[in-house]
Amino acid sequence: MNHFNSQTYIPQLAIDCVIFGYKEKELKVLVSKIHFKGDIYSLPSGFIFQHEGVDEAAHRILKERTGIANIFLEHYQNFGQANRTNKAIFQKIIEKNREFFESEKIIFTQADLEWLTSRFVSLGYYALVDINKVTLTKTEMDESMEWYNIHELPNLMMDHEEMVKKALKYLRLHLDTNIIVFNLLPETFIMKEVQDLYETIYEETYSRNNFQKKILDLKVLERLEKKFTGAQNKAPYLYRFKR
Amino acid sequence: MNHFNSQTYIPQLAIDCVIFGYKEKELKVLVSKIHFKGDIYSLPSGFIFQHEGVDEAAHRILKERTGIANIFLEHYQNFGQANRTNKAIFQKIIEKNREFFESEKIIFTQADLEWLTSRFVSLGYYALVDINKVTLTKTEMDESMEWYNIHELPNLMMDHEEMVKKALKYLRLHLDTNIIVFNLLPETFIMKEVQDLYETIYEETYSRNNFQKKILDLKVLERLEKKFTGAQNKAPYLYRFKR
Repeated sequence: MNHFNSQTYIPQLAIDCVIFGYKEKELKVLVSKIHFKGDIYSLPSGFIFQHEGVDEAAHRILKERTGIANIFLEHYQNFGQANRTNKAIFQKIIEKNREFFESEKIIFTQADLEWLTSRFVSLGYYALVDINKVTLTKTEMDESMEWYNIHELPNLMMDHEEMVKKALKYLRLHLDTNIIVFNLLPETFIMKEVQDLYETIYEETYSRNNFQKKILDLKVLERLEKKFTGAQNKAPYLYRFKR
Repeated sequence: MNHFNSQTYIPQLAIDCVIFGYKEKELKVLVSKIHFKGDIYSLPSGFIFQHEGVDEAAHRILKERTGIANIFLEHYQNFGQANRTNKAIFQKIIEKNREFFESEKIIFTQADLEWLTSRFVSLGYYALVDINKVTLTKTEMDESMEWYNIHELPNLMMDHEEMVKKALKYLRLHLDTNIIVFNLLPETFIMKEVQDLYETIYEETYSRNNFQKKILDLKVLERLEKKFTGAQNKAPYLYRFKR
């Protein structure tokens, strides 16, 4: 077992990642079921090595825990209330898994206990990925690492549900000014695909004309030829994101 | 002297505040000249008590260091590079002030030294205030706590200059969607006052008509009666911010 101490990691500082996944008009969130008895569900999270930057740590943690790499991962908010600790969760894990720890000869030192139950300030990161484009992995810590529909999340530990809510709010607020959304679309796409994405994320429906105007006003799209679909009159234009 | 330790404060975590001040078409930043030999200039900053939330700490630090209280103070970015430490500054302070420390019998313990020279992740907060509305104070740590024009800042310690740049970028990016700007205006105001503020912050000039349209499109202002100025024809409308 890894032992935790301030030579290795920055104490009292954690990173939690809200990874939104989009697939076929559905918005999902990546959640780990922790590999211990107790039905504990958590966002992908971890600690910051003393020798690495915080953004670097966020990318490493996400890659190690989920296999997802090379994506646009952005800090959106800190979670730093005075009473924010893992204590209750950790005690539950210890109680429910006493036999397992004994049989595996896993011993928590006093230093480990102090570390794991101390107050943590968490740096919240978020990303939005195309579920079709990522291959998930998991670690020994995870019984599973899976996508859950944003409306069907399991009961998340600590303040992780609040983290998802705040990240969704941030995502919606910054969707227009962020290129993040166009990472989810193919190289060329029709306006309907953009509208599907926006309607899924905002949970609203837009009129076709208003939506098209709003998006074209952002001035980030280049219009290409029409997409040949068979029907002669209604062929929609293809667009490409201007880099 | 205060001693620093992890019983009192969260280790390796700091808060730095970029306080923008506006007065008569000028944008300024609040800077402390540290009360030690060595010409060290710093943003108002401090550490987080173990018993307080991070936002709470930011307000307390700002109040203690500058006297400014009850303002809209927002987190905008973390500064967490791996090599981010106070070490060089602290060594300079020790060297240049050896006599003073000896005469005052100020002794840094080994624990103090380790604390002060360790890596720090800083949580960056910013605010925009009306210089006429705040009364500055300073602490024993500060030789002075003063407003500097944003283009005439002294040589700031560590990455504090980068912090100001990033905060300015953030301020500009969020000015429209943030009520912060209207805190700088009187209860009722004319469009020219809003335009002066925007032109100062963005360092651009706008045509009167385009600017008026842009601001009215934000739909946050209520139009009142005309302001009587003596000239009969050109009296401008007064506006009030809709709360």
